[in-house]
This record gives sequence, C-alpha cells and structure tokens, in this order.
Amino acid sequence: MPLFSEKTRAERLVDSNEERMINFQTSPDQYKHWKLNVAGPVATLTMDVSEDVTLGEGYKLKLNSYDLGVDIELADAVQRLRFEHPEVRVVVITSLKPRIFCAGANIYMLGTSSHAFKVNFCKFTNETRCAIEDDSRHSGRRYLAALNGTASGGGYELAIACDEIYLVDDGNSAVSLPEVPLLGVLPGTGGLTRLVDKRKVRRDRADVFSTLAEGLKGKRAKEWGLIDDAFPTSRFQDSIDARVQEITKGAPTDLSGIKLAPLQVENSAKRRDYKYVKLNLNREQRYVDLTVHGPEANLPTAADEIYKLGDSYWPLQAYREIDDALLHLRVNEPEIGLVCLRTVGNSVDVLALDETLAANRDHWFVRETLAHMARVLRRLDLTAKSFFALVEPGSCFAGNLLELLLASDRSYMLDSADVQTSVCVSELNAGPLPMSNGLSRLQSRFLAEPERVDAILSNRAPLTTEDADAAGLITFAPDDLDWEDELRVAIEERTSLSPDALTGMEASLRFAGPETMDTKIYGRLTAWQNWIFQRPNAVGPQGALTNYGKPTQAQFDFRRT
Amino acid sequence: MPLFSEKTRAERLVDSNEERMINFQTSPDQYKHWKLNVAGPVATLTMDVSEDVTLGEGYKLKLNSYDLGVDIELADAVQRLRFEHPEVRVVVITSLKPRIFCAGANIYMLGTSSHAFKVNFCKFTNETRCAIEDDSRHSGRRYLAALNGTASGGGYELAIACDEIYLVDDGNSAVSLPEVPLLGVLPGTGGLTRLVDKRKVRRDRADVFSTLAEGLKGKRAKEWGLIDDAFPTSRFQDSIDARVQEITKGAPTDLSGIKLAPLQVENSAKRRDYKYVKLNLNREQRYVDLTVHGPEANLPTAADEIYKLGDSYWPLQAYREIDDALLHLRVNEPEIGLVCLRTVGNSVDVLALDETLAANRDHWFVRETLAHMARVLRRLDLTAKSFFALVEPGSCFAGNLLELLLASDRSYMLDSADVQTSVCVSELNAGPLPMSNGLSRLQSRFLAEPERVDAILSNRAPLTTEDADAAGLITFAPDDLDWEDELRVAIEERTSLSPDALTGMEASLRFAGPETMDTKIYGRLTAWQNWIFQRPNAVGPQGALTNYGKPTQAQFDFRRT
Repeated sequence: MPLFSEKTRAERLVDSNEERMINFQTSPDQYKHWKLNVAGPVATLTMDVSEDVTLGEGYKLKLNSYDLGVDIELADAVQRLRFEHPEVRVVVITSLKPRIFCAGANIYMLGTSSHAFKVNFCKFTNETRCAIEDDSRHSGRRYLAALNGTASGGGYELAIACDEIYLVDDGNSAVSLPEVPLLGVLPGTGGLTRLVDKRKVRRDRADVFSTLAEGLKGKRAKEWGLIDDAFPTSRFQDSIDARVQEITKGAPTDLSGIKLAPLQVENSAKRRDYKYVKLNLNREQRYVDLTVHGPEANLPTAADEIYKLGDSYWPLQAYREIDDALLHLRVNEPEIGLVCLRTVGNSVDVLALDETLAANRDHWFVRETLAHMARVLRRLDLTAKSFFALVEPGSCFAGNLLELLLASDRSYMLDSADVQTSVCVSELNAGPLPMSNGLSRLQSRFLAEPERVDAILSNRAPLTTEDADAAGLITFAPDDLDWEDELRVAIEERTSLSPDALTGMEASLRFAGPETMDTKIYGRLTAWQNWIFQRPNAVGPQGALTNYGKPTQAQFDFRRT
Repeated sequence: MPLFSEKTRAERLVDSNEERMINFQTSPDQYKHWKLNVAGPVATLTMDVSEDVTLGEGYKLKLNSYDLGVDIELADAVQRLRFEHPEVRVVVITSLKPRIFCAGANIYMLGTSSHAFKVNFCKFTNETRCAIEDDSRHSGRRYLAALNGTASGGGYELAIACDEIYLVDDGNSAVSLPEVPLLGVLPGTGGLTRLVDKRKVRRDRADVFSTLAEGLKGKRAKEWGLIDDAFPTSRFQDSIDARVQEITKGAPTDLSGIKLAPLQVENSAKRRDYKYVKLNLNREQRYVDLTVHGPEANLPTAADEIYKLGDSYWPLQAYREIDDALLHLRVNEPEIGLVCLRTVGNSVDVLALDETLAANRDHWFVRETLAHMARVLRRLDLTAKSFFALVEPGSCFAGNLLELLLASDRSYMLDSADVQTSVCVSELNAGPLPMSNGLSRLQSRFLAEPERVDAILSNRAPLTTEDADAAGLITFAPDDLDWEDELRVAIEERTSLSPDALTGMEASLRFAGPETMDTKIYGRLTAWQNWIFQRPNAVGPQGALTNYGKPTQAQFDFRRT
C-alpha cells in the first residue's frame, strides 16, 4: 500500500508524538503569505506567498501556489473581517506577484502528500471558499477578485468563490482549470460545481474550458461567463477602484469591530483543554470525549453590553473553541474515529442566551456570532468522524447546544428514575443555524413528518428522557443499569468498523433532502475527487500527479470507469 | 497496481478479442434466475437464482445472491412488463427460496471483480432499480416487495426500490444492510440514499440500521419505517393477496401489449450494426463512431396504426438499439473513451414523428415509448465516456435526436457556404425527455438564461449553423477547411486525457442545477462507493471485501479520511 506509507510531516509528528502539530490559529501580524489592509469600507487582501515558508518539506510555493498554511491565513483573514472590521463593505482579493494572481494548490505538495492529508486539505480550502460566500450572502460584503495576472487551478477557484471577477487584459493573463489535462485530477475546490452552478457557464463550454490547459483570456473568458470583465493593464487599477467606489458609495462606516484574541489552549499527552471545550483523547480506543461547557448565568441581554464582551462572549468563544478542536482532530488526530459529545451546564442559561441572540439578531455582532455558530456546526456536519451525543444528568443540550446532538450520527440519553435528565429546544433550532442543505437540523431529521418540527418547536419546556424519546429527538434511552455497558459496546463497535465505509455512509445519511451548491461541492465533486486521488492514473507511479514536472510522462490505463 | 491486474472473464474476453462478450439481451423463456408470471392485472416476478449459472467464474450464486447476469434478467422483465403487459397494475416481487428473499450482490463476485467491472455492475443495477421507480411514477404500476424471508444488502435495496415492502414475521426473517459492518463498503445500489430520501428514515436510525449486520425484524423494522408491514407466516400470502386485490380492484384489463422481439445485431471485428444504429470502433484511437439513422418518411400518425407497428416502430426500435449499444460499449469496450455521435436522415421525418408522439402521448404505447426514450437518454447521461455530437450535411439532429446533441459534452457543426446543415427543435425538447435532475436538457443547458429556452422552443424552423451557434445550441462551428483537422485534434486530445479525471469531470458538469434522489444515487452515493472500492480497507489484501468468508480477518488502517 504505497499510498499509505507516504506520510506528511504532520502525520509523522503525530506518529512520533512530537509536540508540533498543525496549528489553525494565526493573526495578520503573523501572516507570511497574505497582507490584509483595511481602509474604511474597503479591505484589500493581497496574496504574496513566501516560497520557502511551507507547512511540509520538499516543495517551494512558487507563483503564489498554496499549501494548507497559506489557506489557514486566508481563512483567518475572512473570519477577522467579519468580527474586527464590520465597517468593510468590499474586499478586493489580488496579488503582489507580477503577472500572476495565483497558480493554485502546490502540485508537488499534493504529489507528496498522503491521501488522507490531500482530502483534509481540500476540505479545509473548500470550507474557506464557502466562508467567503457565506460572508457575501449573510453580511452583504462584496468580494472582488482583481486578477492582475493568470489565475490557474485553485487560483481561479478562489476567484470564482468571489462575487465579481476582473482580469487584466495584457495579452498574456488567463483564467484556467488545468487539473484535468495536466494533472489527471479535478478542479475539486468547488471549481467544476461553481462553473455550472454558480456562474452557470454552459456545460459544453465548461467542458472545453476544463480540458484546456492554457485556459482563456479576456474577451473569450468574458463571453463565456468565466469573468465579469477584462481591463487593459493601463486601466486595470482604475477600473477596480471605480467598481469599489460604486459599491461603497454611501456605505455606513461608523461600525467598529471587536478583537479576536488567540484562543488559550492547554495541551497534555491525552488532553487538549480550552476554556469551554475540553478534549479527552482515548487514542488506544480511537475515540475522543469532547465536552462543551455551557454559558455562565446572567449574561447581558442588551446588544451594547454583549458587544462590550467581544470575543469573550460565550457563543463566540465556545464555538471558536469547538471549531479549532474539530480542525485539530481532523488533521492532527487522524486515527480518532469517533467523537463522544457531552455538554455540562445549566440549560436555563443556554436558553436565556438563545433568547438574547434571537432578540438581537439585527445587531451586526450578534448576526456575525450566529453566522459563525452556523459555520462551526456545518464544519461538524462535514467532519469525517462519527459523532455520538451523550445526554447525562448535568448536561445542557438545549437550544444551540441541542444542535450538537442533532448533528450527531446518533444520541444516547440516560433514562433514570433517580436523576432527571432533559433536553430543550429554543428559537435557534428553528432556522438560524442551517445545515449546508439549507434546512434546519430538525427539518432534516423529520423529513418524513414535517409537522413534527412545528410540534417540537412549539413546546419550549424541558423534555424528560421519555418525552425526548417520544418526540424522536434521541436514538437510545438506556437506563442506569445498562448505560455504561451499552455505551462501551457502542463505542467499541463503532471504532472497529472500516473508517472509509463510515465516511461514505455518514456523508450519505447526514445529507438527506435537498442539495445546494455547497452540498454538491462536498458530496458529488469531493467524492469524485477523492476517488481520483486513489486512482493509479493520478497517484500511481505512472500517474499524472506523480509525474508532473518530471522528465517522465504519465502512462494511463485507459479503461473508462 | 494489483487492482488492475485482476480482470473479469468479460474483460479477458475483450482483451483476447474473443467473440463472446456480455450480452444484455434476454427474454423470459431464457431466464435462469427469475420467473415472470402474469395473470390479468397482476404480475409476479419470482427470484429463484440458479447457483451455478454465473456470468463469471469462481463463485456460486447462493441464497439468491446476484451477479450482472441475474440483474440483466430483472431489467428485461421490468422492460417487458411495460410494453408486453400494459394490463398489469401491480407487480409482486418475491422469492422461491425458503426463508430467504435475496442476499444481495454476490460478495465473492465483487471480491474478484476488477474495479471497472464493479463500478459498471453497480451502475447497471442502479439503473434497473430506477427503472422500477420510473415505471411506478410514470405508468402507475405498483411494485410490492413480498419478503418471504431475509432481504439483506442488495436484497433490501431491491425491496426499497419498490413502492411497498412486506416482511414475513417468522421470528427469523429480517431486513438488513450489512455492507458497512461486514464488508467495509456501502449499500451503494441506492440503499443509503433511499433510506433517508425515499423512506425518509430518521438519520440516526438509518445510522444504527446501516451498521447492524443482523438488521431488524418485523416490529422494529416497521416502527422505523424500513418496511410497510409484517405478517406472520400463516397469514403472509393472504395478506399480500389482499393488498393486491385492493390495488387492482376496478383496474381496466382490456389493454393488450406488443411483443419485444430480440434486436438483430451484426458484429464484425470493427463494427456492430443494428438496423438503425451503427457502431464503427476505432479501438487504436480509443473512440467509436455511433451513427443513428432517423425514421422513415410517412410513418403513421394515428395511435392504433402506431400500435400495430409494435417494436418495429422507429422510436422504440432505434432507442432500444441505442440502449443496447451504450451497454455494450460500457462493459465490453472499456478502452473506448469517446463516442462520436452522428445522425443520418431527414429532419422533417423526425419532426413529423415527434409531432405524432406528442399528439398521442395519452395512448399507453406512445407513453411507454416516450418514457423508454427518456430512460435511454438518461443512460447516455450516466455513461462514463465522453460524447461529441458531430453535425454534418445529411444529419437529422432534430427534436428527439437533438437530445443526443444536448446530452453530449460538446458539439461540432459544420459551417459551410456550399452545403446547408441544420438542427431543429420540437415539442419533445420541451420536457417529455427529462434528465435525472428533473429538468429538460435545454433547461439544464441554459440555467443562466432560462428565457433562452422559451425563445428556442418558440422557433420550430430549422436553424443554420450560424443560427444554432447564436442560439447557444452548439459548441463549435468549424468551416470546411478546418472541419477535418479540428475534429481529428479534438478526438486525439480527448482520448489522451486521464479517463478517471474525465469521468469525474463529466459527472460534475453534466448535472448542473437541482439534484433529485436519482442524481444523488449516481452522484453522492456512487462516487463515495467508487472511492471505497479503491481503498485498501475494502479491496486491499487485508481489506474487508477481500477477506470476507475467509479464515483471515480484515485489518484496517484506521486513519479517518
């Protein structure tokens, strides 16, 4: 199994229990590859990748090509714009490199990465592109891709995640998706899906474009809908500026952001502890306990007081911690196959918080906080690990934290005559935290009986185990005698199954109902890309990805599958 | 690349240029595994698989397990019911084996098949299940799965493709999807998708059910929505009969079907010729010319006269031939990567035919013919080969045959000053031949400009190359001087690309817009299954599929991907 023996640096580090793992936290003053400049309502996010600052070994990030390290900075920038710069109305994404916008994911990095790393890398970059569109959709910030040079592969995929694409018309610069003709893989960071579903490029033109290594330049690219306009070099900057002016005219600039401080994390051999989120790693048994501590009592209810709390406000801090924990588990703990989700706290406090959030959702900070919570929950939906929610006395699976249970593959709730255990819904279960398929988790759960959703939402009282079971909210309700054994067996069984079969199964069962562009990217496109990432025609010794840039040529097995 | 060196018998035959290839034509008198019994409005389709009559070597079809040969018979039976038995209102699918309905796809067959064969096998079985649902949806025939014993894996997947599922309650019989826990693969014949999208089983219950090797019996299976009812052995047959009575009460039985005679095919080294469909195989260059000859002039326009033509009526015969040609190319010509589609004939005759079909669509035979044409075109959409439509003088890409062009990945139309070439739309381009996504091919093509669809449909005159280009119906319009060279280069380029990357790309670009249960099965579920079918955890020397039924146990690489 040669694919498995190639390990990334990160994975070797995990294997050797070294301390340095991939860290998803950064901030603009630490960026190596991007510059974030904010001037009133205009942010400029400039790509200037440092060739030698790579996350792995054995490749250089030439021509603004990127690895996970570059994308972690981009994700951070998009996140910070939303919280630290609410005054920004337009984000211009461009490059400092002459004649090149971005050459996409680094091919040598991909060629030397393990399959699992490639898949996780692509998922994260996809989530970052979707985060840009989420910002545009929910916060009305307009993203402009100012392509000062060629945007190829992932470079064009970054552009196509923006609202508007402008290309310099210098006789040379083009947009292209050369993955199929040059590498034998797909433009899998949403490229193919966004071509036909977002920009709605005609399928035959998309077919031609996606097989044309050199791509298309200004006039034809515009005619085919691949870009919005092309401007000659002499007028390029002015044209972008004019468009920025147009968008920002009359925009309010009196909003003032909050600061996102680094999360404090304490790591030890078997633990990773944040303020509200605690991980207990059972590596031998391949599962982790992830416990979320609920909010404190008596949090402020007025928008201006909430705003003063800034990044220490529970829903922002706790969900940032959940987010970081999920990313950490995905990339740094690949053998952990199961996450046992618990909550600790007082449901009354969670419900009070949800009421405050729902009442203040028109305030920009609350809106951003809710949108962030929704993104984190979607990250959970898309995480290739099993999730069991465990509802015990002292837990607080209420409102927004009930979403953790609803996002889980199954749930266990203690049925005890001695101690009361409860779950409870809030306004936040009714829509503000949608899945990628556009439905709430309750709607997705009760596709067969949509009327149940209304019935459940209309009763805001805590539900006992019996009530929750009758309402269809939980999977199993073992009693005190069975609880421990049943959980132990369930965990053992789950972690004994084929991890690949579980990934494919969960990706199918979690996304019942409608599909959206987002779910198509993570379902149809990603699943095909993952298949191709396993095929000898791409990654075998004679595969196209393996042989790219070498004197040897790819040799295909031409049987069509 | 050990996966590639394992070849199926069929593939070895292709390699050695032997004459015997997999034949998709059969008829009830030749069935080895099924019995089709029709009594008035009731058809009974009984599974009684002959263990030793296998398509490949090295396995026995025990416990009503199936290989492609078994499913070819099922597909034939469903097809014949529609044309030969329009009087049938209900189809009971059951088994002659005691205590077992069907054990699903034969695991030893899967374990010894090449990747490409597994994928093609699954696609065909999926198309057969979808054909059952198509019959139910469009022709109102009701399918009852009468599970007289355990239905596991593909056996339950067959049941779940039916409208109603009844299980015998004998203390032993269960429904189950043991693929994940026992084989490390997915219930990929629509199983996972139909669980949550068709039967709308709650996702946590679907999770439990899909990881429970032994499955669920009567009461719990009904409670969870996996079956519609369970009856004790003593009442089983009576209960099925009663339900059949209920459905067929008052059904008209005066319809009389037509006979589907075997297609006549002439094979030679490089050709495969039907009456209307001609294949010219350029194996060295890895492409095939597929030419469809249009209908004769002056075909009848009245329903009773059409009906008298039976299976020789052009739209039925030509599309049956296209269907057989596509299946042949998929399975017996794996190295052919590109299909060059041509038509020969008179557009006026095609348009006249389409007018007749549209005018008589309420007649059962015309309705069935149209539904069949739509299924064949969907089979084309789902075929993992590239399609180029070539529009030359003397062609007849009009109406229903224009769908071949619209289904192609791209099209080339000659632009000549000397000879006129044209394409033309008809009523049949407006909806009666929908894609799996529920849209017409014109709607899918013009997602960006839906108003174009109406404009195109409102002009029923033949369009010159210039007009067709302006309307957006064709991709390229080379002139006489360039035609030959441009095509030669396009063909050479296409067949030089990675066949896997093309499959993934086409599967993404062909299905823009909404997704349906069908497209989710062929997109999300199938793509994940194909990925798993490449993973060492399933098919490697230590994989679960490889080691099933052996004294050795599967050993997993537990890294989650």
